[in-house]
Amino acid sequence: MTAPGPAIAPEVGTELPPLSVRVTRADLVRYAGASGDFNPIHWSDRTAAAVGLPGVIAHGMLTMALAGRLVSNWVGDPGAIRSYGVRFTRPVVVPDDDEGALIEISGKVSALTDTGPGERIAKITITAAFEGKSVLGRAVAEVAVPPS
Amino acid sequence: MTAPGPAIAPEVGTELPPLSVRVTRADLVRYAGASGDFNPIHWSDRTAAAVGLPGVIAHGMLTMALAGRLVSNWVGDPGAIRSYGVRFTRPVVVPDDDEGALIEISGKVSALTDTGPGERIAKITITAAFEGKSVLGRAVAEVAVPPS
Repeated sequence: MTAPGPAIAPEVGTELPPLSVRVTRADLVRYAGASGDFNPIHWSDRTAAAVGLPGVIAHGMLTMALAGRLVSNWVGDPGAIRSYGVRFTRPVVVPDDDEGALIEISGKVSALTDTGPGERIAKITITAAFEGKSVLGRAVAEVAVPPS
Repeated sequence: MTAPGPAIAPEVGTELPPLSVRVTRADLVRYAGASGDFNPIHWSDRTAAAVGLPGVIAHGMLTMALAGRLVSNWVGDPGAIRSYGVRFTRPVVVPDDDEGALIEISGKVSALTDTGPGERIAKITITAAFEGKSVLGRAVAEVAVPPS
């Protein structure tokens, strides 16, 4: 489960292949059902407006999960991700149309630490942007990578 | 969106109302569809066995999201959660039956910090256990709470 991906040879500064993920209202409804978080700010224009939001917004944990896909795609094994943390700095507003919201995800290796025989931990600093502005702050994942 | 819950008066050491969440294979299938993470270790006994797992396991991000519900239930507003981070220390094995896996979630206020007029941040240390063993390490959320 925790075997690192076979093909990566990370160095400090290595950039991960960027990822664009489109989120639609239908995705939010699916996520509501999967997570049990049925807060109507994630599907009701009326409720979103009533609480002062610019529109229906994505679940923060969904945005976080999608941003984490950058790392699991790169390492090839979600089980290699040892830790993950973010700040929720700005909501992703999802319009009620077929396009939805586009989240642009990028990241790079910001540190590499030998943690034992045959294992290194890469610290990945992740950026997730919506309409050119960051939606997650201090987004960092630690992931097991092959030894150098 | 970020208005703190009305009824809580946290102090350092305050315990949050604990939460038990049952996760079934059907929940994992729903989460796969919602998150786009279709790794078969989350739905195929054959694949899980082939990679040496004791069985099909829950998505780590689903376990994380469910544990976070402890905090959003307590504060009354998911938008009040400013940051959230965990270590993925142990998988939640989900049997193919109607019972699924039971995750026991608890937590307490481990720090309180005044961050400006009318706002405090409570640091919540969360525990999530499956079959009596912790499945998340260093699980910490920061949440906006009413001023003292």
